[in-house]
Amino acid sequence: MVERRKTYKEKPVMLVALGGNALIRKGQKGSIEEQFRNLRVPLSQVARLSRDYRIILTHGNGPQVGNLLLQQECCDALPRLPLEILVAQTQGQIGYMIESTLDSELMKLGNGTVPYIVTVLTYVVVDENDPAFRNPSKPIGPAFSEEAAARLPYRTVRTEKGYRRVVASPRPVTIVEKREIRRLVELGFLVISCGGGGIPVIRESRTFHGVDAVIDKDLASARLAGEVGVDVFVIATDVPGVALNYGYPDQTFLRSITVEEAVERLKKHEFPDGSMGPKVEAAVQFLEEGGRRAVIASIEEVEEAAAGRAGTEFISGRVRG
Amino acid sequence: MVERRKTYKEKPVMLVALGGNALIRKGQKGSIEEQFRNLRVPLSQVARLSRDYRIILTHGNGPQVGNLLLQQECCDALPRLPLEILVAQTQGQIGYMIESTLDSELMKLGNGTVPYIVTVLTYVVVDENDPAFRNPSKPIGPAFSEEAAARLPYRTVRTEKGYRRVVASPRPVTIVEKREIRRLVELGFLVISCGGGGIPVIRESRTFHGVDAVIDKDLASARLAGEVGVDVFVIATDVPGVALNYGYPDQTFLRSITVEEAVERLKKHEFPDGSMGPKVEAAVQFLEEGGRRAVIASIEEVEEAAAGRAGTEFISGRVRG
Repeated sequence: MVERRKTYKEKPVMLVALGGNALIRKGQKGSIEEQFRNLRVPLSQVARLSRDYRIILTHGNGPQVGNLLLQQECCDALPRLPLEILVAQTQGQIGYMIESTLDSELMKLGNGTVPYIVTVLTYVVVDENDPAFRNPSKPIGPAFSEEAAARLPYRTVRTEKGYRRVVASPRPVTIVEKREIRRLVELGFLVISCGGGGIPVIRESRTFHGVDAVIDKDLASARLAGEVGVDVFVIATDVPGVALNYGYPDQTFLRSITVEEAVERLKKHEFPDGSMGPKVEAAVQFLEEGGRRAVIASIEEVEEAAAGRAGTEFISGRVRG
Repeated sequence: MVERRKTYKEKPVMLVALGGNALIRKGQKGSIEEQFRNLRVPLSQVARLSRDYRIILTHGNGPQVGNLLLQQECCDALPRLPLEILVAQTQGQIGYMIESTLDSELMKLGNGTVPYIVTVLTYVVVDENDPAFRNPSKPIGPAFSEEAAARLPYRTVRTEKGYRRVVASPRPVTIVEKREIRRLVELGFLVISCGGGGIPVIRESRTFHGVDAVIDKDLASARLAGEVGVDVFVIATDVPGVALNYGYPDQTFLRSITVEEAVERLKKHEFPDGSMGPKVEAAVQFLEEGGRRAVIASIEEVEEAAAGRAGTEFISGRVRG
């Protein structure tokens, strides 16, 4: 019996947000060869999933933008580039690494045509009145001694590792390329976008200006998922899902959680900031805005999570469609 | 009388290859502010041209990739990234700068809808047996003293400025994303692509591998123009067009040149290597492969060149369609 292929229009749309461990695993130095090898783990799964879903991929950029910042500090001969430009550079770098690896995984699969793939540079509007700009709290880039930090032209914060530059992490308001991405997905393109949470811009009348900030990639992905009308939102990370008492002897990974419970636990700050916290928030936001399914799962288990056999499924009373 | 708008299908397709001076002018240090300001010169024209043409933009990346190379050399703490990754970074950087500036220019124009714009990361297949790999000749990045150069892990060459890294500049064989770009253009998207001549890759059975090389952006643009079926190919640069005896007291800019004459003069090496030479070669290649119009013009006169009132027009006996 020949399995009938789904046509593009019949396929649900899945957004997979790849965590930092898609590129660099714990304990690795993060050579380019390692990063390419690591990418095959999620992308071989994404290649197979693309038979049944229209796919949007998003990704983080923490270590990569950190390296660009460190390089800048090393090199007095050159003017420092604003953060928005560095984020754009990482969208090029990581987008190319993902796209070329995915190309190879799709070609290995054979059987049928490879979908059109594009990596779309993405910028994301933030609100200049976002409270994050008054109280920058996101440490980025290398750690410095107190003396070195005092000479930097940036605001710094003391962290466990040393003094680090701190920037605002405002909420994503809207994805500038949403029309384009929506159209591309309708047409069956596999789209890689919103790298590093997007290049942060503010809109002033008829122009955009980049700003020195970083946007959380899971929150940006949730915004994109909502604006494009994605069916399934998978947040792929380095743990099997959402845990209660994470890091304690009695930690328990959940197979499912209701939106109501997740909101309660978010309010009590039970999920770490800058880690599981924004992921849970992103999943909740997606469902509250009408999304159908949201799952947080390990990068090793994206396919299993899509099939409902792994990860933490978010349960909402309200479903779209 | 109301002017009737052309629909996408009726509009001819124009590829505009932006030279390095679109971003950094002679005598400038090349701050990001300067680069954004400079971009408005060609992009305000491109915005207006997009009413009558479907547009593909390509661009160089020489100074930008040079800065990334210099930064790498400064920073011993980090592993050096292969050149293909740096090219990808510049596609992100410059693509974002072009796209956001063009967005603003289109919004300023008002009157009608802004076309869909996407910046598409592009990689370009080169032949591993290309003779350029046996004899790398393209100097890139910063200049070093003889002693410093001897310690570099790269092949270097002595230039006027000092010792510089030298890499292969193989010919572009095919643009990997040609299907995608063709489809996007058919659909009326304004596409930014092939930045820096594209990310150079070789194909080995079912996978792609990046290689340490750079591809001439005008030759890559000609390849893309041919593969997409572009009607008009405009190479925008820092001089008014093709000159005879360039740099001598009797230099003469040509308003037109036949393909036959251009080929003759190329054979005699009358146009400088790495400068006007590959531009003329790109224009010739485009027309010989069936393109309709090729023009080399100043970045200040893209619109005038499109209208046939500036630049050097290449005249071919053979025309497509």
